Amino acid sequence: TNVDASSSNCIFHWKNSSDWIKLNVGGQLFYTSRTTLTNSDPDSMLARMFSTSSNLHPGCIDSNGAFLIDRDPRYFSPLLNYLRSGSLILDPDINPKGVLEEAYFFNIQSCIPLLEPLTIPRDEAPLS
Amino acid sequence: TNVDASSSNCIFHWKNSSDWIKLNVGGQLFYTSRTTLTNSDPDSMLARMFSTSSNLHPGCIDSNGAFLIDRDPRYFSPLLNYLRSGSLILDPDINPKGVLEEAYFFNIQSCIPLLEPLTIPRDEAPLS
Amino acid sequence: TNVDASSSNCIFHWKNSSDWIKLNVGGQLFYTSRTTLTNSDPDSMLARMFSTSSNLHPGCIDSNGAFLIDRDPRYFSPLLNYLRSGSLILDPDINPKGVLEEAYFFNIQSCIPLLEPLTIPRDEAPLS
Amino acid sequence: TNVDASSSNCIFHWKNSSDWIKLNVGGQLFYTSRTTLTNSDPDSMLARMFSTSSNLHPGCIDSNGAFLIDRDPRYFSPLLNYLRSGSLILDPDINPKGVLEEAYFFNIQSCIPLLEPLTIPRDEAPLS
Amino acid sequence: TNVDASSSNCIFHWKNSSDWIKLNVGGQLFYTSRTTLTNSDPDSMLARMFSTSSNLHPGCIDSNGAFLIDRDPRYFSPLLNYLRSGSLILDPDINPKGVLEEAYFFNIQSCIPLLEPLTIPRDEAPLS
Repeated sequence: TNVDASSSNCIFHWKNSSDWIKLNVGGQLFYTSRTTLTNSDPDSMLARMFSTSSNLHPGCIDSNGAFLIDRDPRYFSPLLNYLRSGSLILDPDINPKGVLEEAYFFNIQSCIPLLEPLTIPRDEAPLS
Repeated sequence: TNVDASSSNCIFHWKNSSDWIKLNVGGQLFYTSRTTLTNSDPDSMLARMFSTSSNLHPGCIDSNGAFLIDRDPRYFSPLLNYLRSGSLILDPDINPKGVLEEAYFFNIQSCIPLLEPLTIPRDEAPLS
Repeated sequence: TNVDASSSNCIFHWKNSSDWIKLNVGGQLFYTSRTTLTNSDPDSMLARMFSTSSNLHPGCIDSNGAFLIDRDPRYFSPLLNYLRSGSLILDPDINPKGVLEEAYFFNIQSCIPLLEPLTIPRDEAPLS
Repeated sequence: TNVDASSSNCIFHWKNSSDWIKLNVGGQLFYTSRTTLTNSDPDSMLARMFSTSSNLHPGCIDSNGAFLIDRDPRYFSPLLNYLRSGSLILDPDINPKGVLEEAYFFNIQSCIPLLEPLTIPRDEAPLS
Repeated sequence: TNVDASSSNCIFHWKNSSDWIKLNVGGQLFYTSRTTLTNSDPDSMLARMFSTSSNLHPGCIDSNGAFLIDRDPRYFSPLLNYLRSGSLILDPDINPKGVLEEAYFFNIQSCIPLLEPLTIPRDEAPLS
């Protein structure tokens, strides 16, 4: 269990350990890469918090070195998966409104048009 | 992982680390901000426990410094999300009665009229 | 994060820290108060284990000081919420038979007539 | 939090602390008693691993002293509850095939005829 | 709780402790065996990361010695169960598209034809 922080120690040989980021979202710990957080929407709050050229300070960290984010982990989770895979995937037991609120909050613009139609009540939806 | 408690170390530059609060609700850990707990309903129990001008003592803390609350974390979670986002969002696998019980307990008045209609049995609901 | 075990350090000013009890139910940790466990059904196993005048020994504890209980945490959780709030609240994704088994095991008599009708197959249920 | 391993320190006065067993099933920790694991099906893998007269070695343990089992904790959980309570209880959000796979793997024979009918597609099920 | 790393200390007498692997998938910890990860699809990313004859470096590890994988644990879980048991088992509350994305990402070829039919909208599915 010796940790080598050189870039050759990492999955796909293109990440070094400083590219791993811990997020404490409302009490639940998420591990992800800087690339995931910064690649897709450069104007999103996460990209601005974690891009190396950012002017937005990433904020407070907890005693384990995880960045604190005061949001609900249940609705953050599918958004983070969207940033990882490029696909918005919702399970049947999750309310899309919760994910949409997070997309607004984190300003993940490309995700919003995927979520808004899912939150319109059926009888108000435009004819298709 | 050096923690700087000055206010400039925090998300949005308006929170300092003493504004982060850990809650141990029935065994599950929640992280949130003092602003979230005190901003919306000044007469709620959480606002009275954690506002800086409060006269209600916030109670016991566990060995990790989290304030102990003897309630069910599953039903507390959507209430905390309501305080964060201003939206009441319920997943299909949660019983609204559980959340309503917590709204009564914590005296979050603005949330109660949103929850009560969801707990009326269908054949007793007023005509709409 | 200084812990003061005096009674004035606690929520509602009527609990001291020795009134907080940790339960390790099958591997999941629950925090609750002695009052919750002992107030409702004096003949329940939990009341007998944790009332200060009890003659039933509360049993083994794990390395964190939590009392070990060899039961399923998923079905224990709504029962503990029942002891806290006085309301039996079941989510749609839980099988009431599981909660009923725990009500029998812990001898929480007042809860049994609320659960038994929920576990009768529809075509065997008495006419109402 | 002083731990007394004598038999008088335990729930129901018939377990001593060496009868508590920690299982790490695929990453999730379960606490249970040796009695639960060995009482019901003497030919099951768990009975053979943990009975005091067993010739099957219980295997590797993790850094917390929990026995490692390379299976899915979500499907192991109802099986362990079956060993505890004698009742097979499945929630609506769980696939019975997952539990059946575990019953085969752990060779819990008495549970298999309860599970197999639940995994037959409706139009292949025998008339009842 | 003495750990003996010799091969005789392990379940089924054919694994030694270096065959246990910890994975930190997006923040959730999974324990599994090297055999599980390498046996089924030799061209999968996991087989290439963890086979003893591999030329693909397994990547970064966290402070607990778990290999970091920047993916969603909820959708990784049924894939790992597939590698363990040979059966693809999905619960009703999970979106098969999420699992399919992981099968593509980890290149678990044998699993893809099982998942793709589950993600086709009903009215686009071929007649059967």
